[in-house]
Amino acid sequence: MKEVILERMGPIAHLILNNPATRNALSLPVIQSILTHLDEVARDPGVRVLIVRGEGPAFCAGHNLKDMVAPEADLHAHRRLFSTCSKMMLQLHRLPQVVIAQVHGIATAAGCQLVAACDLAVAETGAKFATPGVKIGLFCSTPMVPLVRVIGRRRALEMLLTGRFVSAQEALDWGLVNRVVPLERLPEETMELAESIASFSRFTLAFGKEAFYSQVDLDERAAYDFAKEAIVMNCLADDAQEGMRAFVEKRAPIWKHR
Amino acid sequence: MKEVILERMGPIAHLILNNPATRNALSLPVIQSILTHLDEVARDPGVRVLIVRGEGPAFCAGHNLKDMVAPEADLHAHRRLFSTCSKMMLQLHRLPQVVIAQVHGIATAAGCQLVAACDLAVAETGAKFATPGVKIGLFCSTPMVPLVRVIGRRRALEMLLTGRFVSAQEALDWGLVNRVVPLERLPEETMELAESIASFSRFTLAFGKEAFYSQVDLDERAAYDFAKEAIVMNCLADDAQEGMRAFVEKRAPIWKHR
Amino acid sequence: MKEVILERMGPIAHLILNNPATRNALSLPVIQSILTHLDEVARDPGVRVLIVRGEGPAFCAGHNLKDMVAPEADLHAHRRLFSTCSKMMLQLHRLPQVVIAQVHGIATAAGCQLVAACDLAVAETGAKFATPGVKIGLFCSTPMVPLVRVIGRRRALEMLLTGRFVSAQEALDWGLVNRVVPLERLPEETMELAESIASFSRFTLAFGKEAFYSQVDLDERAAYDFAKEAIVMNCLADDAQEGMRAFVEKRAPIWKHR
Repeated sequence: MKEVILERMGPIAHLILNNPATRNALSLPVIQSILTHLDEVARDPGVRVLIVRGEGPAFCAGHNLKDMVAPEADLHAHRRLFSTCSKMMLQLHRLPQVVIAQVHGIATAAGCQLVAACDLAVAETGAKFATPGVKIGLFCSTPMVPLVRVIGRRRALEMLLTGRFVSAQEALDWGLVNRVVPLERLPEETMELAESIASFSRFTLAFGKEAFYSQVDLDERAAYDFAKEAIVMNCLADDAQEGMRAFVEKRAPIWKHR
Repeated sequence: MKEVILERMGPIAHLILNNPATRNALSLPVIQSILTHLDEVARDPGVRVLIVRGEGPAFCAGHNLKDMVAPEADLHAHRRLFSTCSKMMLQLHRLPQVVIAQVHGIATAAGCQLVAACDLAVAETGAKFATPGVKIGLFCSTPMVPLVRVIGRRRALEMLLTGRFVSAQEALDWGLVNRVVPLERLPEETMELAESIASFSRFTLAFGKEAFYSQVDLDERAAYDFAKEAIVMNCLADDAQEGMRAFVEKRAPIWKHR
Repeated sequence: MKEVILERMGPIAHLILNNPATRNALSLPVIQSILTHLDEVARDPGVRVLIVRGEGPAFCAGHNLKDMVAPEADLHAHRRLFSTCSKMMLQLHRLPQVVIAQVHGIATAAGCQLVAACDLAVAETGAKFATPGVKIGLFCSTPMVPLVRVIGRRRALEMLLTGRFVSAQEALDWGLVNRVVPLERLPEETMELAESIASFSRFTLAFGKEAFYSQVDLDERAAYDFAKEAIVMNCLADDAQEGMRAFVEKRAPIWKHR
C-alpha cells in the first residue's frame, strides 16, 4: 500500500493521504513522499489545481506520536521531522498550482496546519479542527504559524491554549475554510471549485499566486511597489493580452498557457 | 461632462465618479483627476469627511480594458497607469480627512480595490464585489494589496483565484464594509455616518488617522513605541485639553479645529 | 481600600480592579499596582491562568480624565502615564501565565485596550466596547495597537473614528472576545475556561505563549524558522515526553511542571 497517492484527472490532480489506520499521520516518510509528489506536480504544466484529501475516517491527525517517543527519537530526529514538515508546508505556497484542502472528519495538529497552509479549503459539515498539542505537553508551535495568519490572533490563541475542537461552521466563520458542504457532496463541491479555477490561464494562476505570497508579509507601501510592477509585467503577457481582447470582443479567451 | 466631480456640503465632501457609460472606469485621466481633487480636499481645512461614490448603475468597474489593449498601450503606458493608480490609492490613506466608500451596484477589480483602500465603507444590499482579473488573464495584483489587509488571506485568495462575486452580506461578515443598508437609504446612511464623524475635531481626526496607518504595519512593540509618544503629543493639543475639560465639566466641547 | 487586588485560588489567580467609583480608572498608581502584581504572578510557579476583572458596574473605563486635565498634568506626567500603561499592556503578553479578560458592563478606551491585550476574553451579553477618545479630542492611539491586531483594520477604524459602542455579539463576531455568556454565568464560564487551561503543563503553557508572541509579527518564513526550532526544543522537554507517552499509553499525563 502506498501511503501517499498522486492522481491526475486532466488539469486537476489529487494528493491523497492513504493511511487510514494512522488517520493519515504525517510521519517523516509520508512528508518526504508528499514533497516528492509536490515536485512532480510543480513540473507538470498540465496541472493547474491540486486537491489534498485523506482516505479513511479523517483528513489528517498530524504527526505520529509513537514515532516521536520511540527510543531513536533524539534531537536530530525531531529536527529532521519538523524541518522537513515546515519545508513541505511552505512548499504548498510556492507551488505554481492552486492547492485546495478537501477536509472531512478531523484535521488536528499538523493536520490542521495542513488545512491552513493550503490556498483554499472546503470542509464537510461534520469536519472538526483542533491544535491539541497543549494537552500532551507539546504546544502546536509549527501549526500556529499558518493558523494565526489565516484566522487571527484571538481565535488562534483559543485553539492553541485550549486544544478544543472547532466545528466546520466556526471554521467557516473564522475564515479557516472557504466552504462547508454536506459530506456526500464534498468531492463534487471541491471539484467544482477546482474546475472553476482550472479554466483560467495556467500562467496567470501561477503568476498571481506567487505575487500574492510575495507581498502578503510586506508593509502596504512596499506591497504596492511590488504589486504595481507585477501587474505591469502581467499586462504584457500573452494570456493577459488575449484575455483582455476576448473580453472587449465579447468572446471566450483561448489561453496560450492552458 | 466632467468624469470626476467634487462637491462640498459643509464639512463633508463628495468625490463622484461620473462616467456611467464606462461604469466609472478608472482611466488614467480619471485617476489624475481624482488625485487633483484629493489635493484640493487635503488643503481645505473646512472638510472633515470625504465620501467616494459613483454615478450610474455601478460604483466602479476598475480600469478600462479598451485602453489597455489599444496599440499605444505599451510597457510605459501600463507603468504610468498602475503607478498613478497605486499613488492615488495610497493617497486615500494619507488624506487628513476620513474617506468613506458609498457602494452601490458592482465594485470590481480596481473598483473593489478602491473600496478596500478607503478608511470605511457603506454598501447597499445589492452591492457586489469581485477581483475578476484572473478570468481575463490579468491577476488583480494591485487590488489584492489593500484587499488582503482588510479581509484576510483565505477570503482574499478565494476572491482572487475564483473571481467570483461576493455579496454585500459576505462583505459585511468579512469586514470589507462596515454597514449594509437598503439602496434607497444608502445616501442618508452614509451621510449619517459621515456627519457623526464630522462633528469631531478636525485636528484629532487627521492626527488619529495618520497615527493609525503609521503603526498598523509595525510589530507590536514598535507600534507601542510610536503610539505612546503620539498620544502624549495629542494630550497637549488644544482640542484634547478642551475635549477632556468639557467631558469633566459635562458640557459639549468647542473645538478650535472645527 | 485597595484599588487593585490579587487573589489566588489554586492554579488560577484573579487580578481585580477595585475602584467602582471611577469605573476602575487606570490611574498611574493603579497601573503601577497592576505591574507589581503581574511581577508577583510571573514569579509564582503555582499560578497558570490569570483572570482580569473589575468590581462595580463596569470592567474598566480607561484613564482618569480628571487627572489628565489637572494643573500638574504636563508633558512629563503624560509621558509617564502612557509609558507605564504601555509597559503594563505589553507585560500581559510576556507573562508566563495565560491571561483572560472577564468583561462585564463597559470596557472603553484603555479599558477596551486591556481586553484586546489579554490572551483571551469572555464577555457577558450586555458588555459593550468602545474607543471613544475621538469624541473628546484625544484619539485612542495606544488602545488601537492591540485592537487592530485583534479585530482587523476596517472594524478597528470604525471604532476609532466613530467612538461608537460595539455590542458583545459584535465583539464575538469580530474576534475581540472568545465567548459571550449571560451575566449571571460570567464568573463560572470564565472559571471553566481557566480551569480547562490550568489542567495543562505550566511549562507548556508558558513555552507556547512565549512562542506565539515571538512569531506573530514575523513574516511567514521567519516564523517557521523560529517555530520549528521551538517545537524541537519542546519535544525534548519532560512534560512533552510524559504527555506523548501518556497519550500512546492511553492514560492521563502526570506533569512535572504542575
